[in-house]
Amino acid sequence: MAQETKIDLYTAGTPNGQKISCTLEELGLKYNVHHVDISKNQQKEEWFLKINPNGRIPAIVDHTSGKPQRIFEGAAIQLYLCSKYDPKHNISFPYDSAEYWEMVSWLTWMQSGIGPMQGQANHFYRYAPTKIDYAINRYQTETKRLYGVLNDRLKGAESGGWLVGRKYTIADLCCFSWVNWAEWAGVETKTFPELQGWLERIQGREAVRRGVDVPEKFEMKEKMKTKEGEEEYAKHHSNWVMQGMKEDQEKHR
Amino acid sequence: MAQETKIDLYTAGTPNGQKISCTLEELGLKYNVHHVDISKNQQKEEWFLKINPNGRIPAIVDHTSGKPQRIFEGAAIQLYLCSKYDPKHNISFPYDSAEYWEMVSWLTWMQSGIGPMQGQANHFYRYAPTKIDYAINRYQTETKRLYGVLNDRLKGAESGGWLVGRKYTIADLCCFSWVNWAEWAGVETKTFPELQGWLERIQGREAVRRGVDVPEKFEMKEKMKTKEGEEEYAKHHSNWVMQGMKEDQEKHR
Repeated sequence: MAQETKIDLYTAGTPNGQKISCTLEELGLKYNVHHVDISKNQQKEEWFLKINPNGRIPAIVDHTSGKPQRIFEGAAIQLYLCSKYDPKHNISFPYDSAEYWEMVSWLTWMQSGIGPMQGQANHFYRYAPTKIDYAINRYQTETKRLYGVLNDRLKGAESGGWLVGRKYTIADLCCFSWVNWAEWAGVETKTFPELQGWLERIQGREAVRRGVDVPEKFEMKEKMKTKEGEEEYAKHHSNWVMQGMKEDQEKHR
Repeated sequence: MAQETKIDLYTAGTPNGQKISCTLEELGLKYNVHHVDISKNQQKEEWFLKINPNGRIPAIVDHTSGKPQRIFEGAAIQLYLCSKYDPKHNISFPYDSAEYWEMVSWLTWMQSGIGPMQGQANHFYRYAPTKIDYAINRYQTETKRLYGVLNDRLKGAESGGWLVGRKYTIADLCCFSWVNWAEWAGVETKTFPELQGWLERIQGREAVRRGVDVPEKFEMKEKMKTKEGEEEYAKHHSNWVMQGMKEDQEKHR
């Protein structure tokens, strides 16, 4: 069933990374996983900047057709993979159809909304050296506002429980990968009933279960069960986040 | 020259809005401008949520082919417009070409990077009620880091001075519309020589000059010439930014 693909995936165990491994799993594609160790700043090494000049995960290089094609940024990768390897449109829509453009709108919405804003909630709630209530409140509120937009979208009977075209697509998957980390940003999903049901339906998918464990076991939810685990997980991530920020500030005074 | 299009553009005089009017101007398309008055919260009214469920500008509705197609979020709109109305690929590349995917990568990079991060720099540098140095520094640094990525990309002789495929495209235009507001975020462009040259080349384009004045005259640079003008401009925007944030926080406690 799997197509004969030669795809290199450069990733790490974050929401942005997981949405690509989940997409590859949904499409049943073969891929080689390269765990980019963010804690060791591998994403800023020269070899990786040739793959993603922004020095961030995820990125892919597709060698399938001979000439290597690099793609960086989640929505771009998801659109590429479906364009090449989802001919029956199991998780996408035909290029240039009305549903296609609605899907691209939601993919872009996620990239410029939930991802960066929930990421800022993580930063101020989990990693920043001092608690700045104004910033925590700002980004948790924006995350909840965005979850509300999703919830309203899923609520209508015409949605069929999915964001676009009454079926599960990469539009759902890209939003899922951040909503699945809600508790890490200190945001609850259970106050959004349609979103909660949607979240659980996606969590239950076999391909998604495999995808979230790439390139390493997804441990956040387990760690959150104890105060010690939660603190340990936060401290581990805080170290590299703050180190990266310090280096950037020194470089760009 | 202009194609017979029936496109409604919903916009305001912001970087996100200007990139769409500039794109429409570059393509020489006819469009009706609807100025969504953010200061009056029009973007949250029911009629507009049917066009963009996220309640933000820009959005378009294309009535050209009969059945209305809505598109929201900048990169999605730019890809749509070029798909439909740039058959000679004056500012884009053929769908599914190598350059096309490189362009989509940069479009997505801009949506998840420069836009949201420079937007946060604006917020903390210009609008927030108290000056929080940590946050100002964080977002100005990230904006500079992203400008550095652009500068490095433009630096190579093989770039021809443009982001993708040695020609001016929507990838340049989407980044331009934020870089053109750099001083508002308290960030300088002249320390990035290639970026500065690229900025000036785009500023000089006739279509861009027309586009940045939609739906209202682009006044920021003029206002910045005097301390009074700068403060007046900041205060005007701060009012609606803070009002919107307060409403969201009340709604999403």
